Amino acid sequence: MYKQQLLDCHNRIKPYIHRTPVLKSRLLDDIAGAQLFFKCENFQRMGAYKMRGATNAILLLSEKERTKGVVTHSSGNFAQALSLAAQSLEVKAYIVMPSNAPKVKKVAVGQYGGNIIECAPTIEARITTASKIAYETGATFIHPSNDMNVIIGQGTAALELLKDYPKLDYIFAPVGGGGLIAGTALAANYFGNNCKVVGGEPFEADDAYRSFHSGKIESNDTTNTIADGLKTVLGDQTFPIILEHVHDIIRVTEDEIVSAMRLIWERLKIIVEPSSAVALAALIREKDRFHKKQIGIIISGGNVDLNNLPF
Amino acid sequence: MYKQQLLDCHNRIKPYIHRTPVLKSRLLDDIAGAQLFFKCENFQRMGAYKMRGATNAILLLSEKERTKGVVTHSSGNFAQALSLAAQSLEVKAYIVMPSNAPKVKKVAVGQYGGNIIECAPTIEARITTASKIAYETGATFIHPSNDMNVIIGQGTAALELLKDYPKLDYIFAPVGGGGLIAGTALAANYFGNNCKVVGGEPFEADDAYRSFHSGKIESNDTTNTIADGLKTVLGDQTFPIILEHVHDIIRVTEDEIVSAMRLIWERLKIIVEPSSAVALAALIREKDRFHKKQIGIIISGGNVDLNNLPF
Repeated sequence: MYKQQLLDCHNRIKPYIHRTPVLKSRLLDDIAGAQLFFKCENFQRMGAYKMRGATNAILLLSEKERTKGVVTHSSGNFAQALSLAAQSLEVKAYIVMPSNAPKVKKVAVGQYGGNIIECAPTIEARITTASKIAYETGATFIHPSNDMNVIIGQGTAALELLKDYPKLDYIFAPVGGGGLIAGTALAANYFGNNCKVVGGEPFEADDAYRSFHSGKIESNDTTNTIADGLKTVLGDQTFPIILEHVHDIIRVTEDEIVSAMRLIWERLKIIVEPSSAVALAALIREKDRFHKKQIGIIISGGNVDLNNLPF
Repeated sequence: MYKQQLLDCHNRIKPYIHRTPVLKSRLLDDIAGAQLFFKCENFQRMGAYKMRGATNAILLLSEKERTKGVVTHSSGNFAQALSLAAQSLEVKAYIVMPSNAPKVKKVAVGQYGGNIIECAPTIEARITTASKIAYETGATFIHPSNDMNVIIGQGTAALELLKDYPKLDYIFAPVGGGGLIAGTALAANYFGNNCKVVGGEPFEADDAYRSFHSGKIESNDTTNTIADGLKTVLGDQTFPIILEHVHDIIRVTEDEIVSAMRLIWERLKIIVEPSSAVALAALIREKDRFHKKQIGIIISGGNVDLNNLPF
């Protein structure tokens, strides 16, 4: 079922997304002791894989639903992705953002045509505000990760990667809300050749690691990590897929994230955000387990604030 | 003559270099008011186009010359390029560097197997030291830019670009010692369809602009520019080619360089060095002249010190 959904989704969103390139680096291969294939979603439209899921979710709305628009709560890439996807499809997008969201992110959402509604900087306020807008406008709420249409959309990055490199032994991806890793795990399951999916997660926001081991959705007390895309927690749609299809989750320190980010910037000469570097950091941390394997790494995005770099 | 030399050179160096990708961006097209094609030599081996000329120069040595090695003076990308090219071809490389060269550059040369010889930080000391080494070891001196084999090698970047996009109206490239722009101008002359070549140069090191207009090689009193690859001056090999085949040279301010660099980082999501941004800065500064044209831009390299960024 998911197999056909992934293929249909890929055909559906193709006209609205880039087929992103896969980069390789002999030097990074040497460092990791494995053969690496970087799927560069930082080159995706608006700079992150989230464009895939957002586009799929909007394309699956009915004509009537489309006229009323879409609403989400996000201060990160999904806010921009839903805005741009909606703009491309001539649908109205309401974006609920916490009042303390960085100005650069609000500007980006505005540039992509999203209508920003500010709320208090709490999870509760976000949810309440988004519900209120959905109620008042009739807009369809689209969750940034915990939505099967979004999950399937995010899985198309791994689908493309496996079409290019069918023999991958592993695919590494970062874990935040779980949309990317769940979609990646489904794609690997149906299109890989015994390809296992491994998540990378900061120690400072390790809810997925703890959920994976306890068997129930855990939360974070604090999320003091530079990987700002990975502060969110799993949901009832993402978690069961992760539990069933993800091979392992590896946690990394903040120093390891910055080092991996620096390696990618210096060696691949591409801009990636800290969340993206978490996947490579996880591989390097436990590289002995993956010696000489063929490993795909999903570079999730490249939206960084150049005024606020860790080096 | 140069036409065949360019083709022969390309075939000769092919096994040792990457065929670098060409990137496009709708947003940058909108900003420039033209259609842009970025030839990404930041993805070249060791991170810059200099790999092309260095490889060509070594491959054209006789067997006997190869056994004695090569020598150059450079504190920049050519030092690394000659080291790596020599290493790939099992030739010894002597690199004369000023004693005040950044440590990160010395480390890079060492990693590529180059033998560093320090000298006082003056042009005279560089030349004297390099001559002394050539005399003592029998190594062949290879100039970073003012050498026909190097110039032809650098021209293969534009050759590839024009093979991919034969209808370019212009190609923009930065001007330092002139090796890149001279090679680019030759390639455009023989492989372009009335394709004109425009140089970008910092106001703070505008010797090429002044030479272009005075008809004789001018020097710089100071070179207070962030574009550290462009502080060198033209030579007797590069200058006549530039005078004959380059369409124009446009000067840019330091602020314009940093803004263009930032645009490339944020929009193309790639790491480029300040010298590379000079070409785009030149186009943006005088964009009205190039409205709606198809324009190639040579991104010369991506070797930046992340500890020392302008933003």
